[in-house]
Amino acid sequence: MISFKAAYQKVLDHRQDYGKEDVPIKAAMGRVLAEDIRADRNFPPFNRATKDGIAIDYTAITAGRTTFKIEGLLPAGTAPRLLADTSHCVEIMTGAVVPANADTVIMYEHLLIGDGRASLSRIPIRGQEIHLEGSDKKRGDLVLPRDIKITAAEIGILATVGKALVPVKKLPKTAVVSTGNELVEITENPLPYQIRRSNIHTLYGALSEEGIVPNEFHLADNKEAMREKLPPILRDHNTVLLSGGISKGKYDFVPEILEELGVTKIFHQVSQQPGKPFWFGIQKETGTIVFSFPGNPVSSFVNYLVYFKDWLKSSMALPIPKIHVILAEDISHMGDLTLFLRVKITNH
Amino acid sequence: MISFKAAYQKVLDHRQDYGKEDVPIKAAMGRVLAEDIRADRNFPPFNRATKDGIAIDYTAITAGRTTFKIEGLLPAGTAPRLLADTSHCVEIMTGAVVPANADTVIMYEHLLIGDGRASLSRIPIRGQEIHLEGSDKKRGDLVLPRDIKITAAEIGILATVGKALVPVKKLPKTAVVSTGNELVEITENPLPYQIRRSNIHTLYGALSEEGIVPNEFHLADNKEAMREKLPPILRDHNTVLLSGGISKGKYDFVPEILEELGVTKIFHQVSQQPGKPFWFGIQKETGTIVFSFPGNPVSSFVNYLVYFKDWLKSSMALPIPKIHVILAEDISHMGDLTLFLRVKITNH
Repeated sequence: MISFKAAYQKVLDHRQDYGKEDVPIKAAMGRVLAEDIRADRNFPPFNRATKDGIAIDYTAITAGRTTFKIEGLLPAGTAPRLLADTSHCVEIMTGAVVPANADTVIMYEHLLIGDGRASLSRIPIRGQEIHLEGSDKKRGDLVLPRDIKITAAEIGILATVGKALVPVKKLPKTAVVSTGNELVEITENPLPYQIRRSNIHTLYGALSEEGIVPNEFHLADNKEAMREKLPPILRDHNTVLLSGGISKGKYDFVPEILEELGVTKIFHQVSQQPGKPFWFGIQKETGTIVFSFPGNPVSSFVNYLVYFKDWLKSSMALPIPKIHVILAEDISHMGDLTLFLRVKITNH
Repeated sequence: MISFKAAYQKVLDHRQDYGKEDVPIKAAMGRVLAEDIRADRNFPPFNRATKDGIAIDYTAITAGRTTFKIEGLLPAGTAPRLLADTSHCVEIMTGAVVPANADTVIMYEHLLIGDGRASLSRIPIRGQEIHLEGSDKKRGDLVLPRDIKITAAEIGILATVGKALVPVKKLPKTAVVSTGNELVEITENPLPYQIRRSNIHTLYGALSEEGIVPNEFHLADNKEAMREKLPPILRDHNTVLLSGGISKGKYDFVPEILEELGVTKIFHQVSQQPGKPFWFGIQKETGTIVFSFPGNPVSSFVNYLVYFKDWLKSSMALPIPKIHVILAEDISHMGDLTLFLRVKITNH
């Protein structure tokens, strides 16, 4: 029996790097960025009007001008043009390129427009309402660092710099494997002494939150079946999550068969509650990591949350957040097992 | 112009109920349960051994017996059987049915086994190591209430009670629509005065977190195109999220065309920053809700987070969590606009 702290460390010590792959931006949510992303152009890419109104050359104002002949209209998305006469103005829309010989934008709210002319109702500040080219990022600047989880905000940035394909870290190819002769499918009507498979569904749901779609298997509590079915599962996956068959029962063959198949035991049994029988190992030949959880639903899920989730974060080079909470009531605990309790966190 | 508080309330007042549908359990993660879920049998469904060891009738111990002839072996998943002789024992595995004429299970750790007999190394407590039939839930008891978000833990419970198909609330059929002649696709190389579409991708990513896969559209800044393309979008979706075209520019046709197409304006412009130009309305005829966000990426995303997310929660009858934080530094703010600031929440 190993302490929780030692077991947890051994699990993290077996973090893996599965390399990277390109996925379409629509599939990148929740994935971990595998490369630094840099600006492919200046941002903004041009001197951009941030208001609807007129663009002028401020020297005209310095020279005392407050009414400007309107030369034309510049919508967003049109090619840049110059003021034909720098004592004139051009109507300009948000997102349009400010003429190279203009330097100030004045919004409609501060203008009187009529008779082909715009008159200022207040004196503007030179340079106002223009988002200058490259003022957010210069071409080549870092816009997103690698090793971060991609959320909707990052998706917008990736789109802006043209990353239709996003370099992300590969996730482990994962199998979830139930054992236990008492288990039947959810769609079946169990006999009085049978129960439905549930751990595999809990794990499937939990893994799907990590972007992992596991393959599912079931093994009967019988050595021959395990010897036949486990080798291809170990060969074809990076991680195998088993449930059941690791306690002291006469049909708990999982540890024995795993070792027989070349999976080296890192530890078996952790001084913790629930989830004490947890077995953890690695098949050296393939690098496949085996998390073998107890069959009890709470034990299996707690071990998943405590060990697998942090192992995965660690393998993706993501930080492991620690949340500190204040207990609302005393908890008494005797013995030296590490206790995992279900708590409800409220935020005041 | 309307206050943030009034605008927010008007948005929530337009929450909708889109009814329910059955989805396969594998697709139920993150969805909202639409019906109370009840136990289809007692849980546990039988008196269940919780340890590997032997089952006995405690009266034998009361009569002074401490060594028991082993009658046989009861693995999990086998039909119940009785002790042939209640002064004997049967080996029993975790998850197996305790014989009806036994009442106590003793784990191997507290036994000496040899010569076809099991001897107690300590006196057990009557009834120990048995999870009694129906002690968790009786058939018909509520196991999950409706109106909760389904996480991995609920998936396990749904599997246990045989819900291969899960009744969940329907999500709104949603369109995301960009406007703006300056926008090009991510895969394109923008001309110097063009930028790539990004809001639509941010919204796509954010919606995907809610289980919504939106349909995507783009409208040119031109009234005819909008008159032609918007009607089927409004007809075929429950919610339409537009980006751009709602400010004071000469090409900001969206509010005018929406009203022309029978979308009643609930409000336009909110006393907030960013996202002031936000336009919100409903097409009474179809019940389609229109969130028309500004084209600025931050404005659009903030409005999505502040209004759409809570509108969706409200439509799904989910509680809207309020998180209180302590500011690490003073924020000075002049004027009466409601200010939305990006913060980083840390937990100490």
